[in-house]
Amino acid sequence: MEQDWFLEKFETAGTAFGLRLGEKLHSERSDFQDIEIYQTDTFGRLMVIDGAVMLTDRDNFLYHEMLTHPALCLHPDPQRVLIIGGGDCGTLREVLRHDSVTAVTQVEIDERVTRLAEQYFPDLCASNADPRAQLLFDDGIAHVRNAADASLDLIIIDSTDPVGPAEGLFNRAFYKDCVRSLASNGMLVQQTESPLLHMDLIRSVHDSLQAEGFAETHLLHFPQPVYPSGWWSATVAFKQGPRPEPVSSRVAALTADSKYFNAGTLAGALSLPNFVRDGLARPR
Amino acid sequence: MEQDWFLEKFETAGTAFGLRLGEKLHSERSDFQDIEIYQTDTFGRLMVIDGAVMLTDRDNFLYHEMLTHPALCLHPDPQRVLIIGGGDCGTLREVLRHDSVTAVTQVEIDERVTRLAEQYFPDLCASNADPRAQLLFDDGIAHVRNAADASLDLIIIDSTDPVGPAEGLFNRAFYKDCVRSLASNGMLVQQTESPLLHMDLIRSVHDSLQAEGFAETHLLHFPQPVYPSGWWSATVAFKQGPRPEPVSSRVAALTADSKYFNAGTLAGALSLPNFVRDGLARPR
Repeated sequence: MEQDWFLEKFETAGTAFGLRLGEKLHSERSDFQDIEIYQTDTFGRLMVIDGAVMLTDRDNFLYHEMLTHPALCLHPDPQRVLIIGGGDCGTLREVLRHDSVTAVTQVEIDERVTRLAEQYFPDLCASNADPRAQLLFDDGIAHVRNAADASLDLIIIDSTDPVGPAEGLFNRAFYKDCVRSLASNGMLVQQTESPLLHMDLIRSVHDSLQAEGFAETHLLHFPQPVYPSGWWSATVAFKQGPRPEPVSSRVAALTADSKYFNAGTLAGALSLPNFVRDGLARPR
Repeated sequence: MEQDWFLEKFETAGTAFGLRLGEKLHSERSDFQDIEIYQTDTFGRLMVIDGAVMLTDRDNFLYHEMLTHPALCLHPDPQRVLIIGGGDCGTLREVLRHDSVTAVTQVEIDERVTRLAEQYFPDLCASNADPRAQLLFDDGIAHVRNAADASLDLIIIDSTDPVGPAEGLFNRAFYKDCVRSLASNGMLVQQTESPLLHMDLIRSVHDSLQAEGFAETHLLHFPQPVYPSGWWSATVAFKQGPRPEPVSSRVAALTADSKYFNAGTLAGALSLPNFVRDGLARPR
């Protein structure tokens, strides 16, 4: 492999993904992880953390739109939103497109991720100064543990893979605190890896969320080229069921400025392939 | 890069995809191309042609189901089907699941692809002996040129990328012969690469199909992890419009034995992201 390609091997999946590089723009070891920023040839800028692709300019819209808008359009009136992780601020920007939202707190453990995003991915950080936004640099698990009962409408878990620092965001103790801190019609949405590669994890997340008191869990799927398999998912959990229909006026309002999200792709994201549906439905 | 990974660089896309390998099972130079078969660690067997991934055991169901069933369910009564390419026979197998089909001719230019598929991917070749199937090893472009007028209900173009041998399957002279050889309610479906990476090609295919007399063209999109970007498309063209609704009884009948395809994923495949819709709608 020549030196001008970035290559990430997903060891557990047995797959690899690469991008042809231009210059390396930045590299540092933060208190938490190794962070690198590259110019790529065809995907704009690339952020890498501990050797894993976090995002590129070209395709992050898929992940950021589909992690946020489906959940926000399924909630009857999302006002108070908490983002765990999400240091690149792309999720925050999408959340702030919703007029119903009155306050968003983002709790990212590594301030350096956000500072580098401000410098190298300014588009993603365009709404950081919104008066509704509060950026904290702290432990998201502890933050939720300390949150007041019923103080949130939506919790968005925009984390790295469920190993290392993010592992605690995929377990029952954390979900229990989430349930408690959500209002009675509250929701949670979490990135849950690849439907093709990680059905066991997805099933485990759904089981854990339900065990801790979420009435319903639903999977969304969408393309995400720079992550393993190029196919990704998010899990939406409802503190009380049944899952409502998306608020169509809000879906329509968002469509004009979205690149992927609209009423049709939202319905498509919620329409599960047979093998995914069967994987979630098999007896526990 | 260690020797035990297969790595394909998509030079024009600036991306790369890899799979961790077990043993090499076969390698040959046919009259047309280099063909290799590997055992992979996590994706079953892998066929590579001229260095490009053709298919793996694990994820070919996505491509084969979505290239065939949407088109066959959108046709009112598909009886006579022609497959151009498709030498691994996975497309043929899916077509033969449709009871309406009375005759399928597969025209693959390289007999060795099919012989190796029979040996190394026997599941895909399970229907090769079906009395409705005819396997020809010939030039698909010439075959369509020589086809009788109005003699086909559906043409499926299951080709490699639009360079080299497959280039002639993406041009107007070929599409003109397709229109002529299709019955008045006939259809064509063609694999048309990645929505993220190849919108210019997709737009060009749609324009060419319409210029040669197809009344309507529609894009389908679906995940396909081993192809560039992990996100793929097919274009469905209708000799006469408007596009009908899928035949729901046929969709339902297929769902039980499909891994991806069902009414919901079909609707999702036809629901275009905004940037794709805009790319197809911009003035010519």
